[in-house]
Amino acid sequence: MPFVNIQITREGATPEQKAELIAGVTELLVRVLNKNPATTFVIIDEVDTDNWGVGGQSVTALRLAQERAKVGK
Amino acid sequence: MPFVNIQITREGATPEQKAELIAGVTELLVRVLNKNPATTFVIIDEVDTDNWGVGGQSVTALRLAQERAKVGK
Amino acid sequence: MPFVNIQITREGATPEQKAELIAGVTELLVRVLNKNPATTFVIIDEVDTDNWGVGGQSVTALRLAQERAKVGK
Amino acid sequence: MPFVNIQITREGATPEQKAELIAGVTELLVRVLNKNPATTFVIIDEVDTDNWGVGGQSVTALRLAQERAKVGK
Amino acid sequence: MPFVNIQITREGATPEQKAELIAGVTELLVRVLNKNPATTFVIIDEVDTDNWGVGGQSVTALRLAQERAKVGK
Amino acid sequence: MPFVNIQITREGATPEQKAELIAGVTELLVRVLNKNPATTFVIIDEVDTDNWGVGGQSVTALRLAQERAKVGK
Repeated sequence: MPFVNIQITREGATPEQKAELIAGVTELLVRVLNKNPATTFVIIDEVDTDNWGVGGQSVTALRLAQERAKVGK
Repeated sequence: MPFVNIQITREGATPEQKAELIAGVTELLVRVLNKNPATTFVIIDEVDTDNWGVGGQSVTALRLAQERAKVGK
Repeated sequence: MPFVNIQITREGATPEQKAELIAGVTELLVRVLNKNPATTFVIIDEVDTDNWGVGGQSVTALRLAQERAKVGK
Repeated sequence: MPFVNIQITREGATPEQKAELIAGVTELLVRVLNKNPATTFVIIDEVDTDNWGVGGQSVTALRLAQERAKVGK
Repeated sequence: MPFVNIQITREGATPEQKAELIAGVTELLVRVLNKNPATTFVIIDEVDTDNWGVGGQSVTALRLAQERAKVGK
Repeated sequence: MPFVNIQITREGATPEQKAELIAGVTELLVRVLNKNPATTFVIIDEVDTDNWGVGGQSVTALRLAQERAKVGK
């Protein structure tokens, strides 16, 4: 009865990709720990880029800087 | 000062039902562990059915299959 | 298929009390939201008092101050 | 590589305030535990006031009572 | 920069199995969402069976009942 | 009433350092969002290095490789 929580930034993951993550994580837990898929939960949280920080800044700011760096080249 | 996080699929829980969960969990922690309700937090996360997986598939797919099974009968 | 996480300080909750919390929360979710108990998970995290802060200080420090206040009376 | 999750009620925190929280928490972990900011994640969850309970009631109800108490004065 | 939290009961998962889960989840996120493994965190929480409830009872009680059922056959 | 969860690897953070994190995060939330310290919770989870993965491997393996790299110089 594992519970898996996947947190990613909200940057366009499609329903199909999310279904693939759910299937892949469940298969992994069945294969490695012989868990019962019927009681294996996988929950995906998509977080706004304003609300996710790395390196002391938000991913929104990070993406903006990356864009400017590309344009600046 | 307990912190309780309730995660459910986003499938129509009403404000009244959520208030009942908050009251019920708080009362339980007061009764069983003599906790102070003023510093007992209860947080309810409602998760889209695309983002909740069980048995290797999303709840969206699961509900669809359940509907088809009903119609098929 | 709700997932409930209860976080409390590690201050002596007995197996019986934890069993009572598990039963109580499950019953509440069955009664209020008609959830299936067989796929209702309740997980209890017990946190060391050094690792739980409130009011800007650890619960260890808070309990110590409470003891001194009692003795000081 | 710390992971920090900040949960607050959804009551108008601005992008600038969230950026300040991200910067402040990251700086704190660098200063206190000498962590690498490049692998320090800070995630802010904003929770609807219907979904956050304290003292056995939702924050929505709590704010309403606070408003009435002000008006009643 | 995904953050994945895997919660399982503390029932003997070996370091090798945990390493396999970490590698498998990371590979999945790289393959499906093209994420950078260097900033993909996977955290495994092992929960005592007294502290994990399903069907309204602790896994400790559940395992005990399963044992008795085996012996009773 | 913010709830902050700080997850770090279990690599020797002292009670004093944890108290400093608790005080620092609380002060930040008071200053930036004018929150009430009395209902601001900060919880620190220390995770075994076998149970924390980054780059597809456990931190235990990562630290071992770092040691060998140092010795190899």
